[in-house]
Formats: sequence, C-alpha cells, structure tokens
Amino acid sequence: MTKKIILDTDPGIDDAMAILFAEAHPDIELVALTTVFGNATIENGTRNALYLKERFKITADIAQGASQPLVRSPVGPTEVVHGLTGLGDFHVPDDFVGHPDPRPAYQYIIDTVKAHPHEITLVAVGPLTNLALALQAAPEIASLVAQVVIMGGAFGENDHRGNVTPYAEANIHDDPHAADIVFCAPWPVTIIGLDVTEESFFSAYYLDQLRHDAADMGEFIFTISRYYLRFYSQKVGLEGCHVHDPSAIAYVIDPELFITRKGAVRVVCEGPASGMTMQKLDTKQYQTDEWSSMPAQEVGISVDSAQLLDLYQKTLIDYSHNQ
Amino acid sequence: MTKKIILDTDPGIDDAMAILFAEAHPDIELVALTTVFGNATIENGTRNALYLKERFKITADIAQGASQPLVRSPVGPTEVVHGLTGLGDFHVPDDFVGHPDPRPAYQYIIDTVKAHPHEITLVAVGPLTNLALALQAAPEIASLVAQVVIMGGAFGENDHRGNVTPYAEANIHDDPHAADIVFCAPWPVTIIGLDVTEESFFSAYYLDQLRHDAADMGEFIFTISRYYLRFYSQKVGLEGCHVHDPSAIAYVIDPELFITRKGAVRVVCEGPASGMTMQKLDTKQYQTDEWSSMPAQEVGISVDSAQLLDLYQKTLIDYSHNQ
Repeated sequence: MTKKIILDTDPGIDDAMAILFAEAHPDIELVALTTVFGNATIENGTRNALYLKERFKITADIAQGASQPLVRSPVGPTEVVHGLTGLGDFHVPDDFVGHPDPRPAYQYIIDTVKAHPHEITLVAVGPLTNLALALQAAPEIASLVAQVVIMGGAFGENDHRGNVTPYAEANIHDDPHAADIVFCAPWPVTIIGLDVTEESFFSAYYLDQLRHDAADMGEFIFTISRYYLRFYSQKVGLEGCHVHDPSAIAYVIDPELFITRKGAVRVVCEGPASGMTMQKLDTKQYQTDEWSSMPAQEVGISVDSAQLLDLYQKTLIDYSHNQ
Repeated sequence: MTKKIILDTDPGIDDAMAILFAEAHPDIELVALTTVFGNATIENGTRNALYLKERFKITADIAQGASQPLVRSPVGPTEVVHGLTGLGDFHVPDDFVGHPDPRPAYQYIIDTVKAHPHEITLVAVGPLTNLALALQAAPEIASLVAQVVIMGGAFGENDHRGNVTPYAEANIHDDPHAADIVFCAPWPVTIIGLDVTEESFFSAYYLDQLRHDAADMGEFIFTISRYYLRFYSQKVGLEGCHVHDPSAIAYVIDPELFITRKGAVRVVCEGPASGMTMQKLDTKQYQTDEWSSMPAQEVGISVDSAQLLDLYQKTLIDYSHNQ
C-alpha cells in the first residue's frame, strides 16, 4: 500500500536527495513538499523545491513555510555546507518561475491532514517550525496523522551529540522550541538522529555509479553533491557524505532497516546546549521529571546501512528504467 | 605532603561520611568545612557540621554559606534521602550550641585561599553556590587555589545521567548557574560525577564492619546510614549505598584511583534538562561552540572501587587505633 507523505524540507543538498528518493519509490505518494528555512533561506529553499518539481515532473504541491524560528534568533543558512542558494554549485536559473500553493505550509499541512484523516505521514527533514505552527493552530491534527518521521537531533553516546555545536544537530538547533513542541505532542513520532544518519555513507564511487545508472536523477544528485563532497573532504575528512535526510524516507519505506527505542524526548531550548535532544530511557520516578507526562516516541539507534544504500540505489535505478 | 583542604559541604549523610574520611586521613589537613544548602537547610547543615566538629574533635573552622541558589528557585532539601535534619534518624541534640566563624563561607574561602596561596584544595560536595560567590567577589582566587575537586554532575552514557531528574544530578540541579561559573573559571577543576560515584558501593555488611572496627567514627557512620539504607532499599533497590561524597575525598588522597578525561564542561541552566552537565570531548570546530573558549577540566570516567573501599576502611580503622 502506498503511503501519502508530506515532506517538510529545507532544500538543501541532502534534502534534494531525499525528495528524489521519495518521488522515485513506488510505495510513496508524495502529496506535497512544504518548505522551511534552514539549509537555505526560505526563498531559495522554495525555489529549489519548485525547480525540482518542474525538472522531475513531480506532481506534489509545493507550499512555502516559515522563514524563521518560533522564538530563538535565526542562525542563518549553512552556506558552507549547502552553498549560496542551497544546492551547492547548482543554482536554479534566474528566469525560472514556479508556482507554489497560495497557503502557508502550516495551513497546507492542517488542511491536507484533515482532508485525509489517518492517511498522511509527515516527514520533516528541516527545522520543525512548520509542524509546530500547525500543531499550535490546530492541535487536533495530532490525532489525525498516520505518523511523523523526523530527521533531526542526536541520541548517540558522548561522541555523537552534534554537528553545528558540540551537543546539537542543525535542524533542532535552528528551532529548538519548535522541536520540543513536536516531540511532546500526542502523535506518534519517530526520530532518526545524526548518530544514525552518520552510519550510512554515500561514497564518491557510489555517487559516480548513481550518475551512470540513474538517468537524470542520478545526474542531478551527482551535480549537487560536488559542493557537499568538497565540504566533507575539507571539514569532515571523508571522501563522500553522510545520508542524513534520505534516511527519514528510508524509514517510511522500510522501518525494518532501523532499530528504535521508545521514550519521551525533550529538547534543551536555552544556553550552550540549545538544540540538544534527550530521551528518557528508564521508567524510574524522579523528584523532578519533565519527561514523565510526555508521550513516548521512537528514536532510531541504528540502521542496516548496507541495505539502506541498496534501497536508495535500486529505487533510483528502477525509477529511471520506468520513465 | 599533607594537602590543606576546605571542604564545602551540605551535610548530609554521605557528606558526613566524607568529612570523617577527610579528618581521619593523615595526608589531609582539614582547614575548614564551609556549609551550603542542599541535602538539608543551611541551618541544619551548619548545625550538623558544628556537631561533627565537637563530637570528633575536628579542629577545622566551620563557616556558614549560602542558603539558596544564585538564580533558580530553590529545590528544597532532599528529606526523603537524608532525613528531616540531614543526618537520617540522627538529630543533633536540641541543647547543642556550636560556634561558626563569623564570616560567610564565600568570604572565608577568599580569605583563606589568599592567606595560603597555591596551597588550598577546594573540595565541594554540595551545590556550588559558595564557590561561585567567592569567584564573583574575588576572581583572582582562581589562580591562587591548588586545585578544585567536585562531586557533582553525571557524564556517563545514556543510562547514567541523573538522580533527581532523568538528566541531572542533585548538586548541580540545586544551582546550575553556580556550577557553570565554577566549571568555566580559569582554575583546575576535577569533577567526579554520579556515573563514577555509583561504581562504588558501601554494602550493609561493609557498614557493619566499619561499626565494629572503627570506633566512634564507625559507630556514627553506621547510625546515620540506617535512614540512607532504607531509602536505597525502598527507592533504588540496593542493600547498601553509593559512595558519592567520599569519592571526592578519595580523589584528593589518591588521584590514581580514578581515570579522568579532559575537556571544557558546561551546564544546562534552564528547561527540562536544567542541571545537566556536558563535556566537550573533541577538538572539532563547530559553527557555534560555547565550550571552545572555556578551560579544559578533568572529568572522572571510572574508579577502582575495590581500592577506594579499602582506602576508606583502612583510613577510618587506622585513625581509630591512633586516638
């Protein structure tokens, strides 16, 4: 059975990799891309989404979302990772004109969840501002979604707690208050964090093969990944890139690839650890426990990365053969 | 060579165990006990310290310190752990009158550190309010202490992050702002956290033996530990108690018992994780890094608990033979 998803995204190089993965997989019906600030400005991110829609004949709606976080001061786009406009060296042509849905992303989400009760999976791979705004405006959607799948945060041991700060991952750090709202809402959330997405790795060779085998999607992924790979080579010391956002799509397609654990999740919203994610892992009663009344959510703790890489490759190649 | 220590303490059952350990060991010259709110009210904690001074003929000065945290609202004494007045079922007799130093603890610390430059080790086993107040009033003491040894916080893996909340240890949770000041000051701090102190365990049998072998100190420790052991039995499910505060004294006596690691330490001061301690463990440069300009401190990661237990027992027995 196909799953209807709304993919909330800040495109973003690995966002584009996730969008094409979702579009290409037969089990996913990509209802919409809702955009959010993060890897790029909201204007650039939305243009990137609209461009992908046109270039790859994606039928999904595009709705533009939040330009800034709920409470904290904006961090700004991660240009050093995703390039000036979000897709590395690739820039959407100046004369390109796209046509987003007139509604803001949070309203689009509310309307669509209500129109398809219990059918929509929300997949969010950027800051969680749109989802939080939707919950604030219409809390009843919490009981009307099928599930919520997030790429964000970090739940590993001491050496796997952050990328933009020593203890915070970019999506959550960009809007910690929104993340805490989303994780504490009474809907079923699965969070795939940095410690899990960093288990999987698109090597330079893998991306070369994808270019060779997966037609225009492969070519496009190869093109946008050049800038990303320079960042990884110079700053991370790796000849390839981690599979951040596509991991959330992989979870939707085949949750069996992941091992998860259950427990309430909170976010640090202030101070040096702002954006840190924490899961309550025991059932002890504490003197003070601001987790105890929150819903238990699923947090990914590991992934079968070989199978994930196979799934991604096979999905894009099969798709290219069917065009 | 003996080490002059000022023991900043919130007595407290395990505080009393630490005080007697420090008093009994020939390598330690216990210059003063400075008191702080925490396990008991400041009035009860100070009375307990004064009582210990009289009963065990301790020559150390007693200076009363802070009654409440710097910024956060007070949490209140942990009566369920340490009993109504701080020493379990034992209560200082109503007619007991002690004589503390007239100075507040932070001023006593400043004066004494300046009077003995580079000789004083500050050992703090309660909330860090007095040390923070001393630093605020006289920042120059940071370069005049020999070292600072703290029992507090938790730096273990996911299952060892808190006792009073899922992610915070009591001493740090009681005054997180003070702790962040103390850890970020330019003085050499070693922190022995919950994950390490919980490696060592005074069993009911061990405490029985101590009563038998260590004269009045053994008898007193046995007496005050009855309440503590009931708490441990009922709430923690253990027939004995962890060796929290005495571990800091053990570190002063024999640092070789502990393995430590170096890195800047920060404290979460707001929200559900308030009181959580975090150490930066790598030398990566992050986009945002509120650890990078802070001094690297030592954090304990493990202890030879068998040797620690031997050291404690031998110290008290030897002391009792020499009286």
